[in-house]
Amino acid sequence: MKDPRLVAFGERVRKLRKEKGLSQEALADLAGIERSYMGHIERGDQNITLIKIFQIAEALEMSPGYLIDNE
Amino acid sequence: MKDPRLVAFGERVRKLRKEKGLSQEALADLAGIERSYMGHIERGDQNITLIKIFQIAEALEMSPGYLIDNE
Repeated sequence: MKDPRLVAFGERVRKLRKEKGLSQEALADLAGIERSYMGHIERGDQNITLIKIFQIAEALEMSPGYLIDNE
Repeated sequence: MKDPRLVAFGERVRKLRKEKGLSQEALADLAGIERSYMGHIERGDQNITLIKIFQIAEALEMSPGYLIDNE
């Protein structure tokens, strides 16, 4: 069963990515993360590590904390 | 070599933990994390996963984002 916190995080990444007008592949490339892995993250299948959170935040030009805290 | 972002995160956890008056062991127990693992986190030796970040944030009664963003 998926962890709802990871699902929420993944949904937030997807939302912010789309607001930036980026495809999942483009964000993966920008963040230096495998494309298939980015799919797992957005679906909440992956218990992502902090370093990768930093990489995604940098690619989205956002603070890592903003990426994590769901409003 | 340690990643400076992990070192900064660990230092922040330690600072916030001390502000709460908690020992490293007490925080580990509250967060449901192995005591030795908590030591690695605070020293920046460990690329912590998001679930554990949530656990520590909950134990410290802070938002996960606040825990991550260094001011």
